[in-house]
This record gives sequence, C-alpha cells and structure tokens, in this order.
Amino acid sequence: MHETKRLAGLIQERIDDAVLAHREALGPLGPDIAPLLDEAMGFLSGGKRFRAQFALLGYRAVRPLDVDGPVDAEFGAALDAACALELFHAAALIHDDVIDRSNTRRGRPATHRGFAAMHRDEGWRGSAEHFGVSGAILLGDLLQSWSDELMQRACEALPDAARAGRTRAHFNRMRSEVAVGQYLDVLEEQRTEFAGHEEQLERSTRVLVYKSAKYSVEAPLLIGSALAGAAPEQEEALASFGLPIGVAFQLRDDLLGVFGDEELTGKPSGDDLVEGKRTVLVTLSREELPANQRRIFDDLLGTDLDADQVAMLQLTIRTSGAVEQVEEIISRNVERATEALRGAPVRQDAATSLLRLAERATQRAF
Amino acid sequence: MHETKRLAGLIQERIDDAVLAHREALGPLGPDIAPLLDEAMGFLSGGKRFRAQFALLGYRAVRPLDVDGPVDAEFGAALDAACALELFHAAALIHDDVIDRSNTRRGRPATHRGFAAMHRDEGWRGSAEHFGVSGAILLGDLLQSWSDELMQRACEALPDAARAGRTRAHFNRMRSEVAVGQYLDVLEEQRTEFAGHEEQLERSTRVLVYKSAKYSVEAPLLIGSALAGAAPEQEEALASFGLPIGVAFQLRDDLLGVFGDEELTGKPSGDDLVEGKRTVLVTLSREELPANQRRIFDDLLGTDLDADQVAMLQLTIRTSGAVEQVEEIISRNVERATEALRGAPVRQDAATSLLRLAERATQRAF
Repeated sequence: MHETKRLAGLIQERIDDAVLAHREALGPLGPDIAPLLDEAMGFLSGGKRFRAQFALLGYRAVRPLDVDGPVDAEFGAALDAACALELFHAAALIHDDVIDRSNTRRGRPATHRGFAAMHRDEGWRGSAEHFGVSGAILLGDLLQSWSDELMQRACEALPDAARAGRTRAHFNRMRSEVAVGQYLDVLEEQRTEFAGHEEQLERSTRVLVYKSAKYSVEAPLLIGSALAGAAPEQEEALASFGLPIGVAFQLRDDLLGVFGDEELTGKPSGDDLVEGKRTVLVTLSREELPANQRRIFDDLLGTDLDADQVAMLQLTIRTSGAVEQVEEIISRNVERATEALRGAPVRQDAATSLLRLAERATQRAF
Repeated sequence: MHETKRLAGLIQERIDDAVLAHREALGPLGPDIAPLLDEAMGFLSGGKRFRAQFALLGYRAVRPLDVDGPVDAEFGAALDAACALELFHAAALIHDDVIDRSNTRRGRPATHRGFAAMHRDEGWRGSAEHFGVSGAILLGDLLQSWSDELMQRACEALPDAARAGRTRAHFNRMRSEVAVGQYLDVLEEQRTEFAGHEEQLERSTRVLVYKSAKYSVEAPLLIGSALAGAAPEQEEALASFGLPIGVAFQLRDDLLGVFGDEELTGKPSGDDLVEGKRTVLVTLSREELPANQRRIFDDLLGTDLDADQVAMLQLTIRTSGAVEQVEEIISRNVERATEALRGAPVRQDAATSLLRLAERATQRAF
C-alpha cells in the first residue's frame, strides 16, 4: 500500500511536470489555449492508473526497483513509460467519449461536454456540440503525441537499444490493436440484428480481447517488462498472466457498465445499455431469454432508456443467470492467471504484488 | 523532375508497404476491419506530398543523397521520416475534415463522409453521420500512431543518437503546435464578432504561422535536416527560408480556399467562406470595406451559402484590393526566403531544388 502510494505520487508529479513543460513551450501561442491545457490537467489528475501500475510491475517482475530510493535513470525510464500509457489512455478515453456520446468521465463532464459548455457560457456562434467534439478531437490528438514523447524519453534513457526496440514494438502493437478493436466495437453497435449466439459470442469476445484485455493489462505488463530487458520466457509468463486478467478486468467492467453505482464509477448506472454495447454479458443474457423477451430486450438495447427501462433490463439480465456465468468466467480467468504465475521466471516480490493488483482490477466496484 | 518522380515513387511504395504490413499484423482481428484499412490506403494514395519533399530536401541540404542509387540505411531513414510526415498529415486532415465538416478531400469523399455512406449502404441502425465521425476519429488515431512508428524506424536507423534526438525534438514540437494551432483556428470561427483590425490580423497570422507555415514547410525542413545531422547554422538558415515560404504557402491556400477551381483543388470553390475561416485574406478584405458592406459580409461569412452568395463574397473580396495585398505579401515572403538561402551553409544542389519547390508551393493552382 505504501509502495502504491509512493508510485502514484511519482506518476502524478511526472504527468504534471510534462503538462507544465508543454504549457511553457506553447506560451507563444497566447492565452486562448488555456482551456485546452486546463482540460488536459484536469483529465489527467484522475483515473485508476491500472495501466501505469501494471507497467511498473511488469518492470519489477524482471528488474528490481527500489521504490523508496532516488529516481535514477532506470527508475525514471520506468516511470516515463508508465506515464506514457496514462497519457495514451487519456487520449483514447477523450475520443471514446465522443464516439460513445458519453456525458461524464471520472466524475467530471466528458471533455467534449466540457468544451460545449464553455461555448454556451461564452455565447459563441455556431453549434456548441460541434465545438465540443472539435476540442475533444484536438485534445486527444495532443495527448497522443505527448504520450509518445514520454515513451521516447523512456526508451532513450535505456542503456541498451534492444530493450528500447522491444518496448516500442509492444507499444506500437498496443496502439494499433486498441484503435482497430474500438472500431470493431463501434461496428457491432451499428448492426440491426445480433448474429447467431456462437458468432456473436466470438465477436463480442474479440472486441473484449483487443479493445480491453490486451490493452489494459497484457500490453502494459509487456511494455514494462521489455523496458526492463525481459527474456522471452519472462514475457511469455507475463502474457499468460496478463491476458486472462485482462479478460476478467473487462468482464468486471461489463458488469459495472450495467449494474455499477454512479457514485463509485463516475458513469450513470446502466450506461452500457443505453449505448447498446454488445458485451459478452449482454450476449450471454440474450441466449438465456425466451424468444419474446429477447425481442423486447433487443428493441430496447441502445435506445434512449428512462430509469424504469434501465431497471427492467438490469432485472432481465440479473434473472437470466448471465451474471453468475460472467462471475464464473472471471474466477476461471483469475485462476488461470494465478496458475501461470506459479513458478514463472519472474521476481517473487513483483509476482505477489501482481496477484494483489489483479484482484483489485477484477473485483473492483468502480 | 526525374528526381521528384523517383522520390514520389519510393515514398508511395514505402507507404503502401507500411499499410500492408499493418494489415497483415492486424489479420487476427478479422475481415470486418477491411473498410478501415481500405480507407487508409485510398487516402494515402493521394496528396501533393509537399511535406515529404521538404523533408527530403532538408536532408539533402545537409548530406548528399544519390536519388538514383540503391536505398541504403541512410536513404531509407530519410524516406521513412518523409513518409511519417505524410501519415501524420493524413491523420490531421482526416480529423480536420470532421472538425470543418468538409465533404470532400483530395477529390474523394472526406473520410467521415465515406464511413457515413457505408453505414447508409448497409442499412445499419443509428446515425450514419455519427458512425462516420467515429470511423474518422479512429482512423486518424491509427494513422497518427503509424506515423510515429515510421519516425521511430527512421531515428533507429541513424548511427548517431544526437541526430535522432534532434529529429524527434522537431517532430514533437511540430505535432504539439499544429494541434494547438488548429484549436485556435476553430476558436476564431466561434467568436460572434471580429476583433479590431490589428488584433484580428495578429490572431489570423498566429493561426497561419502555427497551423500551417511551420507545419507545412519549416518543420519538415528541420526534421529532414536534423536527420542528416545539420549544424545549428544550417538549421537556422533552413528555418529562415522555411518560415516565409510556409507563410506564402498558406496565403496561397487562403486564396485557393476562396477562388480555387474545384476541378483542381478537389474542394468546392469558396469552401473557406462557407466554413467562416478568419484568414488573413478575409481580415484584410474586411478592413477595406465600408461599414455597411462589412456588416453584410460578416453576416454571410460562415453560413450555409448558395452559389450566388459565394460569388458575391468572392467579388467583394476581389474588389476590396485584398487579393493584391495578399499576392504582395506572398512575393515579399518568397523574396525574403530566397534571400535567406543566398550564401547559406547548405548544399547548393539542394538549395536550387528548394527554390524550385518553394515556387511550386506558393504559385500552385491546387
């Protein structure tokens, strides 16, 4: 716990420093850019930092890190990589919220909503909504390139070009896969009909794996471990642990997207139902419903639901037995991950912390 | 001319190879991602390639390049950097077109319009427009990260870490400045009133410098020259040449945005007037108009103009004398740039080609 706090503090400090340095460099562009930088700062002060934590533990699985010691070049590189992931994630979320038309994020208005509100407050001309979208697109782009810069700095600090090359390879693959996975997710929501059960489950699982499981857990672990100079068998062990934890992480997210408490998640309860996300949870529920109920379910999903309709869909999913099924898949994946770590060629203290973080990531209520 | 053709061919080949390699790597995500990759391929097969050409000439200003020779590691690095700029530019344009609600680009439907048309053709559910925007956001993100990969590869191929570091610094600065410059451009369009002439001219010039002049000419030159290991005085000379050429380049663009021929530009004539862009051209025109005409001008600018209204605004700008003013500023900037290159510590053959390319960039009709 103490270690986690110290690392969280170092990460926040480093993110703030990066934004401040950019703010200074962009000074010649004048004071009108302040809202853009303020939003960056505000957005980046929140979040669960799972990706940063997994990256640091990936590093520590391979190479010791004295968390209480001074931040030397190696420690700094690990922190930079962790921060790069958080900035990339912020960029992705800001764009995601435009795509999903989300209103809130991290308990604040979503970035595009914030810019739209500014437009209205200032009484500007044209569409406040469109200005909001424009601001969010540009801030996402900006943060994506700042993320890159931090990853460059991490790689440049390494004494060994092979470590840098391997780190970049994992980072690059992650970025491509998450953008394309997100595209597949959006595509699913557009289809007029669900596919047959087996095919739909395959599609929903593919989105889950690429958009989230690899992105949230496996890739950060591999990036951190590559930065530390992992041997192939170490990468393999971490991937065998990371992928199932990532799957469990996203299945928990699916449950929270339907049943989560707004106070804790910072998102309205039942948000995924309004958005019409064809998650594994939804797919499993549908399979259990009798045909007439399933038709009603399909007609409601992805529409502008009121509170009663949300409650009804929640009840339908709950009584279908799909929640238990998903909980069971979560448990099975956590077990498989735990098994993969047993006797794996990674540092023991990191393995212990990984199991703890995995539990937090897969059992969270927010 | 022969050199230009050979380089253009090599660049297209390398871009195609990069997209194909990504396509193969993303194979496990299934066939549904094809439209995303097809659009990438289609978009990247067009464009004037000014940024790639300026980057290659920046390189050749410092280090000889045997254009007809085999593509060795150094040549490959220069080509990769040039391609990275083209991919970044594609990403920026795809997002820009969402922001500017443009219908066409490079003579094809803008990316978001293409995805929207696909949605309609497939008879999918929900908003075709919103799906179009989502697809364009994600493709832009994807191309931004692919651009980064090419720049990484360019930097990794260099024998010298200092050259790589300097190249990255210019690339990073360019990315930040163009996103923030674009934000300022959008901001200008939202204001209900023009500022006083002096202030408005300052604002319009700032957008022109950061969103375009530095981005289109100065930065590519500096990136190319840094890659080749430019000395500080060489960078200085190229910047003194590049910035005024960039200014002239964008002023030409402003003229084409109002008077351009759709057949040649691939954009409807008067597009900037419909979008309400507060360009230097527009700002200079307004200053020349009597108060009552200026009021009509302001009321029309940035609205959904019909052909007659576009023609009227074009005539107003033409008779205001602003076109001659802008042509004069273009000439002055080209002269200043030419002067900066005279006796500059850069390779003579590259300087000659630079002057030729600068003329094409500032005198074009498309």
